[in-house]
Amino acid sequence: MPRTNGTVVGTQVEDTRICVVMVGLPARGKSLIAGKIVRYLRWLSVDARSFNVGTYRRQDTPQPTADFFDINNKEGERMRRAAAEAAVKDMLKWFSQEKGTVAILDATNSTRARRKWLAQTISSRGIEVMFVESKCDDEDLIMSNIMEVKTTSPDYRGQDPEAAARDFRDRIRNYEKVYETITETDYTYVKLINVGTQVVINCIQDYLQSRIVYFLMNLHIKPRSIWLSRHGESMYNLAGKIGGDADLSPRGMRYGEVLPELCRQSGILPQQGITVWTSTMKRTIQTAQHLPYNKLQWKALDELDSGTCDGLTYEEIEEQFPEDFKARDDDKYNYRYRGGESYRDLVIRLEPIIMEMERQENVMVVTHQAVIRCIYAYFMNVPQDRSPWMEIPLHTVIKLTPKAYGTKEERFKANIPAVSTFRPKYSSAKHQEADSPDVNELSVKMSI
Amino acid sequence: MPRTNGTVVGTQVEDTRICVVMVGLPARGKSLIAGKIVRYLRWLSVDARSFNVGTYRRQDTPQPTADFFDINNKEGERMRRAAAEAAVKDMLKWFSQEKGTVAILDATNSTRARRKWLAQTISSRGIEVMFVESKCDDEDLIMSNIMEVKTTSPDYRGQDPEAAARDFRDRIRNYEKVYETITETDYTYVKLINVGTQVVINCIQDYLQSRIVYFLMNLHIKPRSIWLSRHGESMYNLAGKIGGDADLSPRGMRYGEVLPELCRQSGILPQQGITVWTSTMKRTIQTAQHLPYNKLQWKALDELDSGTCDGLTYEEIEEQFPEDFKARDDDKYNYRYRGGESYRDLVIRLEPIIMEMERQENVMVVTHQAVIRCIYAYFMNVPQDRSPWMEIPLHTVIKLTPKAYGTKEERFKANIPAVSTFRPKYSSAKHQEADSPDVNELSVKMSI
Repeated sequence: MPRTNGTVVGTQVEDTRICVVMVGLPARGKSLIAGKIVRYLRWLSVDARSFNVGTYRRQDTPQPTADFFDINNKEGERMRRAAAEAAVKDMLKWFSQEKGTVAILDATNSTRARRKWLAQTISSRGIEVMFVESKCDDEDLIMSNIMEVKTTSPDYRGQDPEAAARDFRDRIRNYEKVYETITETDYTYVKLINVGTQVVINCIQDYLQSRIVYFLMNLHIKPRSIWLSRHGESMYNLAGKIGGDADLSPRGMRYGEVLPELCRQSGILPQQGITVWTSTMKRTIQTAQHLPYNKLQWKALDELDSGTCDGLTYEEIEEQFPEDFKARDDDKYNYRYRGGESYRDLVIRLEPIIMEMERQENVMVVTHQAVIRCIYAYFMNVPQDRSPWMEIPLHTVIKLTPKAYGTKEERFKANIPAVSTFRPKYSSAKHQEADSPDVNELSVKMSI
Repeated sequence: MPRTNGTVVGTQVEDTRICVVMVGLPARGKSLIAGKIVRYLRWLSVDARSFNVGTYRRQDTPQPTADFFDINNKEGERMRRAAAEAAVKDMLKWFSQEKGTVAILDATNSTRARRKWLAQTISSRGIEVMFVESKCDDEDLIMSNIMEVKTTSPDYRGQDPEAAARDFRDRIRNYEKVYETITETDYTYVKLINVGTQVVINCIQDYLQSRIVYFLMNLHIKPRSIWLSRHGESMYNLAGKIGGDADLSPRGMRYGEVLPELCRQSGILPQQGITVWTSTMKRTIQTAQHLPYNKLQWKALDELDSGTCDGLTYEEIEEQFPEDFKARDDDKYNYRYRGGESYRDLVIRLEPIIMEMERQENVMVVTHQAVIRCIYAYFMNVPQDRSPWMEIPLHTVIKLTPKAYGTKEERFKANIPAVSTFRPKYSSAKHQEADSPDVNELSVKMSI
């Protein structure tokens, strides 16, 4: 497990290595779940990677028909076995040469014989094996997965969508003939039945496994969106100071007043159930005060603690703590303010928030620049060297809508000017008006 | 959910009310699990209470024999039903009159008919019902529970232990005749199979339910102990200052040197697997440096953040912030230092630590005064008005050993003097030598 500044992400066993082996028929959301586990773990600085057996199989058989997956097709079986072996070989190499922590083996692995072979091969290398089965008999869900596959899978690229869907259903039928749901009680496994409805957990061994299980328990697949907004412009923003617990500026107050309308424009229906989360700081509570929804304050949503630098301007920090100023810009993700926090610390503090956001349906979060950067990085899969440098402008609502493969982003800008609190690397220049010609290009480009 | 200082414990639904209905044969650890849930929730400021149907039944039938539980004993059945009804009635009164949040109905509830009646009766009042079944076929575990019951249950008080065990086994056999394990998929339930081995989770609905489930998932019943120690005396302790990141004093260094021997005296065997957790602060890392075990640093174990008061003496705080000084002593649990934390905040920060301690076997935690107070309060069930005032002396190892009904505490004192950092209410007197005649009596009494 990664350590920086003396902090660990959570597990106490530095050399834990886990192979998560997916199990399930085609069109049961296995790749989606695998992708979510990888994104969650990477956000927590756990080195994770998915190995998709289909990708290996496609090297020799790019566009197989359903016959290829027929149990009586010996040649097909040999080639599918070879693809699984190649994926496992690469995965073991990743563990040994690149010191990986969690690998996901993304394939059907739908027979006891296949699972036995995997359990033996992988655990003999000292790697823990955890099976994650997605079992689903919800016909609507399966159909929507089939529709997704026929339009996105490279197996059917360039083919007639109807024929593709038909063939894919035949392929599933071939898998069903040999499918054995997991009941091997000597293995560590998690069985997800109709994602989020029933979960069976068997023989969880350690901390990292229990975190993955808790994450899987909280997943759901109901459609929903997440709205993010920074507080309105504050008196500290105007003064160029960081931290503190200042009131909103008059322009910040105006942002709070137009926020209900901006929310409606961005698609929050008045009759819709939505909860607004704020931090415990005045500027987020004031910003959310006119929103006609249930509200909840979280201490965990408070701004990154800048310790001894709290209340200073960047210029003052550069003057008073020149070494710290440089060290922070050299490695902004890991730099911990004296007596305060780093982005890495913040991510650990936000982990329960992310978990709860996964469980929730529609939710709006009114919080602070660094906090939104971390939440945004989770949903948009932004790496750590970039996430602390992202521009998150004031007076803008960001709407994120998780889709099967990725997250859709929309930005809604209020027509109320504010300073830009975005600070380029090594600069301590005072905040500029965001609407001036100096505005960072990214902010304009991504706003809608 | 309780709110203080604008912080909430976690759930976003203020009016969540849950009745956890225990399910399972006698001697399956139901009361133990119920007790643990109550202790965990109360520590998180969630108002929780257990209602034991046996206690109600004993009002009319203090010492029944196994015949009383025979399915053919109509009078016994009527009386048992009446006891269940009385418990449910009191429980509903507790929800409505005392605004309770989580009730545990502790009884066998081992038939579908009984569960149906409970589900209907309770959910018609707008209270969520969550069944928690403990299913166990581990003969050793059942036997040890039977041994426990025959010696501790009021049902068998004053009786011959062998006869009591025999009668209790007959009682279990009577329950087995009608026992139906929970499979009602329209109910929210958690089935714990051989505590910690397999868990089945069905239809979890909200945040508080998911927290209870995660807690139950992490429970185990292997014997183990927890060792707690504050860091050795620090330079700040000598100066009477709070907070900071000071080095150990020469006496604190000596404590670090004798700590391995003190650990051995307290029962840590050299070949035993134990992990030492410290905070990220110098004084805990220095204290643990000579311990020959695996070590792990947690940011979450850092001392309570005293914000603007960091680095001051209590005298200086009283001078510079007289109102804060008084406010803190008036309600020490809820008082949040300006720019810092309250004990309530600290408990929320420590929740993942407690969860991981439940999962762990032997673990030693070297941390700070306020942090140990919170951890100790969890295991020893100390209420919030008392926990911030407990004396946790320097240079002392506290060993906690969870038992079936309660936690055993032992204290091991190093023969190295240190100041006492214990501060009585409204006092700002400078730290005294703990070994002087002024030493607080409690510390002497509880040390061994």
